[in-house]
Amino acid sequence: MLAAFEYQNPVRVVFGENKIDSLGSLLPDKKILLLYGQGSIFKNGTYDRVKTAIRNAEMVEFGGIEANPVYETLMKAVELGKKEKIEFILAVGGGSVIDGAKFVAAAIPYNGDGWDILTKKGVIKSAVPLGTVLTLPATGTEMNSNSVISRAETKEKLSFASPFCYPVFSIMDISLLPSLPERQRINGVIDAFVHTTEQYMTYPVNAKMQDRIAEGIFSTLIEEGHTYIHEPGNKEAATNVLYTAMMALNGWLSTGVPTDWSIHMVGHELTALIGVDHGISLAIILPSMYRRLAESKQEKLAQYARRVWNVEEKDTLKVALKGIDLTEKFFNDLGAVTRLSHYTDDRKFLQDEISRRFESRKWLKFGEKGEVTPEVVREVIEMAW
Amino acid sequence: MLAAFEYQNPVRVVFGENKIDSLGSLLPDKKILLLYGQGSIFKNGTYDRVKTAIRNAEMVEFGGIEANPVYETLMKAVELGKKEKIEFILAVGGGSVIDGAKFVAAAIPYNGDGWDILTKKGVIKSAVPLGTVLTLPATGTEMNSNSVISRAETKEKLSFASPFCYPVFSIMDISLLPSLPERQRINGVIDAFVHTTEQYMTYPVNAKMQDRIAEGIFSTLIEEGHTYIHEPGNKEAATNVLYTAMMALNGWLSTGVPTDWSIHMVGHELTALIGVDHGISLAIILPSMYRRLAESKQEKLAQYARRVWNVEEKDTLKVALKGIDLTEKFFNDLGAVTRLSHYTDDRKFLQDEISRRFESRKWLKFGEKGEVTPEVVREVIEMAW
Repeated sequence: MLAAFEYQNPVRVVFGENKIDSLGSLLPDKKILLLYGQGSIFKNGTYDRVKTAIRNAEMVEFGGIEANPVYETLMKAVELGKKEKIEFILAVGGGSVIDGAKFVAAAIPYNGDGWDILTKKGVIKSAVPLGTVLTLPATGTEMNSNSVISRAETKEKLSFASPFCYPVFSIMDISLLPSLPERQRINGVIDAFVHTTEQYMTYPVNAKMQDRIAEGIFSTLIEEGHTYIHEPGNKEAATNVLYTAMMALNGWLSTGVPTDWSIHMVGHELTALIGVDHGISLAIILPSMYRRLAESKQEKLAQYARRVWNVEEKDTLKVALKGIDLTEKFFNDLGAVTRLSHYTDDRKFLQDEISRRFESRKWLKFGEKGEVTPEVVREVIEMAW
Repeated sequence: MLAAFEYQNPVRVVFGENKIDSLGSLLPDKKILLLYGQGSIFKNGTYDRVKTAIRNAEMVEFGGIEANPVYETLMKAVELGKKEKIEFILAVGGGSVIDGAKFVAAAIPYNGDGWDILTKKGVIKSAVPLGTVLTLPATGTEMNSNSVISRAETKEKLSFASPFCYPVFSIMDISLLPSLPERQRINGVIDAFVHTTEQYMTYPVNAKMQDRIAEGIFSTLIEEGHTYIHEPGNKEAATNVLYTAMMALNGWLSTGVPTDWSIHMVGHELTALIGVDHGISLAIILPSMYRRLAESKQEKLAQYARRVWNVEEKDTLKVALKGIDLTEKFFNDLGAVTRLSHYTDDRKFLQDEISRRFESRKWLKFGEKGEVTPEVVREVIEMAW
């Protein structure tokens, strides 16, 4: 049976083609810090549309936020925000810019070392309000309070969440998407897909509705993913992917059910250590993690294989394994290479360093049943080779 | 393709067994107006649990709100609330009590005739904040801003919605459900089911995710409805129905898609004129409405029949009609008689009066394509006989 849960999500979703042009009416009459990434918004016209839409708002700009937003960079934005006494943050970008903006929003009023927010030593008691213009469907950050930040100095990638970090509004506008590079599209579809598996592939608790929503996300991404990636002008596919990526991590899927974020935890380490894209890191780890845990997760794996992939065999474990194979093939068909050996030569370094990190952080028993030990992580990396 | 939409829903859902006992921590330190219905909360212990949970809060009580809450009764609560200068409303009950509470919340600060709120002549500019303890899964009112109110004097049943009327919190607690009478259970399952059809059974706009969520609601209610109704102690079924009824009308299903609330509009008239229960009124009208509009709605009807009922024929219209037959049989199996002749002898009166009302309210072209004219309503009532 479902466990007890609370759900509250105050984000105002403003969804539709050309909705960016109504940005002005959404912004408060306050001093704004505009945050953006590596400059694609200048090339694809998004910056100009933002400037036109906000008209005469008082605004300070800070650009250069990296993919997998970097703590050291963000702390410069925090300094700027403090100095300029900004009152509202506008994040224009994908998951990295928005995650970075959440950190900046929390760190500006925070007294103490900003890194405490990531190590959970610090308690977030307030944040500068922020709004977002999403330019890349993937992480779902536009409708949640989560953020993942990397530290260059120590090659760490850590997350935090705070109810103060829900965006006040998020504009989701397919007119901003046609210029997205294929690589970011592939990453986005896989990210949304694996957000869903992490909240679904555990053990059955008879959460019938949550399961159906998750299966709907899988089916939609399978049906639309390829078109979205390879036909950048296809509005229908872009619309469905944009909507679905949001539903994958706006909190509903995990209400009252067990979750297992092990794939993300290992994937984050791959990104931190060898710089592989976030979505790709998940596509590498998922098949091996689920093969390693297939027996334990077989009931949900089989339900997934039957309902989403129409696998029709009887034997539960066989069906489960077929579901994993089909998922890996789906990732491959989208354009993701799912073998770790494609990205690095040094398997032993990854095995040693990642299992060492899990141990040093006392992440000794991950997963819904505590089965993902540092030793299992080592095995999974081997299997992913 | 999806139309543009906005979505924002601030309700704090507090879901879980015995969550009513934490009511005290959710209430503000303000003067409270407790609203309840016909007194079942005294018999089943819910009133005592509320009183225990809220401890010493200052509270005025108003009971006697009817099923299909009556304007004349609610205006007495409005008077009491004004006189007592209440600052917060706590609604303990099903959809009728909560809908009634929303009206009271809006009418207390409203300057003018309260009925204006229902006829949309009045603009709601504020409302007393309200929290709810849901005792009957059905209407979804616990997580939306809608309300339906009846006027005894004129036998009218009208609705309103206001962003000020979202509950601050809603407690959804299966420990309050075992004493529910079978009749209310049947009504509840059908109500949630038809909320979903009204937001789904139109024409395809390639809203893949919204469709999947709707189909998940259908499947869950079909799988759990019978058990929930006939095994009052079954916690699993109660949990899934409670969750699903909320998802059916918390706003997601209708994001960006056409809707058609014709069945509710005609059903409301049956309730207003001959007093048939709300859920039953929908079960009576749905099969005939969809048979009458089968050709126009055939694509979504067929998608529903195929995905939810596994109908496997090729011909779209035939599949569509089979889906309607299976739905009527489902309602019958739950315990609902779906023939209007079971409830009244006077078909001509209903046909004349309901089509007259539609005409006098200028409801001349209901439905996603404007096909539901007063004449079609007349035909549907005939077909439902």
